[in-house]
Amino acid sequence: MNDESRQYISDSIRTIPDFPKKGIMFHDVTSLLLDPKAFQLSIDDFAARYKDHKIDVVAGFEARGFIFGAPLALQLKCAFVPLRKPGKLPGETIGASYQLEYGEDRIEMHLGHVKEGQRVLLIDDLIATGGTLAAGIKLMNQVKAEIVECACVIELPDLNGKAKLGGLPLYVQVQKEGD
Amino acid sequence: MNDESRQYISDSIRTIPDFPKKGIMFHDVTSLLLDPKAFQLSIDDFAARYKDHKIDVVAGFEARGFIFGAPLALQLKCAFVPLRKPGKLPGETIGASYQLEYGEDRIEMHLGHVKEGQRVLLIDDLIATGGTLAAGIKLMNQVKAEIVECACVIELPDLNGKAKLGGLPLYVQVQKEGD
Repeated sequence: MNDESRQYISDSIRTIPDFPKKGIMFHDVTSLLLDPKAFQLSIDDFAARYKDHKIDVVAGFEARGFIFGAPLALQLKCAFVPLRKPGKLPGETIGASYQLEYGEDRIEMHLGHVKEGQRVLLIDDLIATGGTLAAGIKLMNQVKAEIVECACVIELPDLNGKAKLGGLPLYVQVQKEGD
Repeated sequence: MNDESRQYISDSIRTIPDFPKKGIMFHDVTSLLLDPKAFQLSIDDFAARYKDHKIDVVAGFEARGFIFGAPLALQLKCAFVPLRKPGKLPGETIGASYQLEYGEDRIEMHLGHVKEGQRVLLIDDLIATGGTLAAGIKLMNQVKAEIVECACVIELPDLNGKAKLGGLPLYVQVQKEGD
């Protein structure tokens, strides 16, 4: 992606102060989604990056990861697998927990929807502390899938989420400040 | 869409008994999403139906509505607006409540993301009793947008959700039994 496109995507993402709590700058992709050009630039960039990587599965995190992961899977002509909050998936699942600032959260995946040896791209809208992506990596390791890369629209590099990915590569389209 | 494509989509949706509770047959689109041909047939069918309808906004319901709504908005080159559970959207919102079997639920939309007079398509994966779609209609009426149609992959006609849409047209790709 050229610098102009990157800047265009970055400019389309509005910042909302003090959400979800005071002192946090929230980077809101809903403003990007209002602009079909920005949204298409983002998806096309991911698709161009991964088209020759023989991706079998794009796995997207509930809920904003679905918005980027589903169109990307269509462009790559591969499966889309949603990684969901507990209790949302109707079939048999496997899960992985991760720490939040207070307490913990968990994501689940349908058993059998990612198979041993499949090449997986993990996608979310944003990487902050990296907890969610790390849980996704745990899930894929449980089923012995091969993670090609983790991809996000936005990275907050100050929070060093990349350190939680166990050495896996991370691709991001834009970087922002977290607070 | 021809009968063969419709049947292909229908066959790709697995049924899981007794979810979320005993006696309910849950129609699970995650199996459709594993099959890029089925997923693309569904999106292409929606896109063909709406391409000449001057849609300004595709509004999709959290969370499975995002999976179909986001690719459709890209194909139609229009905005995508997520309709979310309470507390998820960082900006100023408006909301609409709807009845569940026990208690009520609520969806929210960012204020200003759908404007007066805009032509909106509401999309979700499934219409059961129609409560969620009816809440989406309330939201669009609040901002004086024009709803072109409600669209779902699956309808459970036994539950007569269509009756809750206040006479608005409903388009569905496949019909299934609810119990």
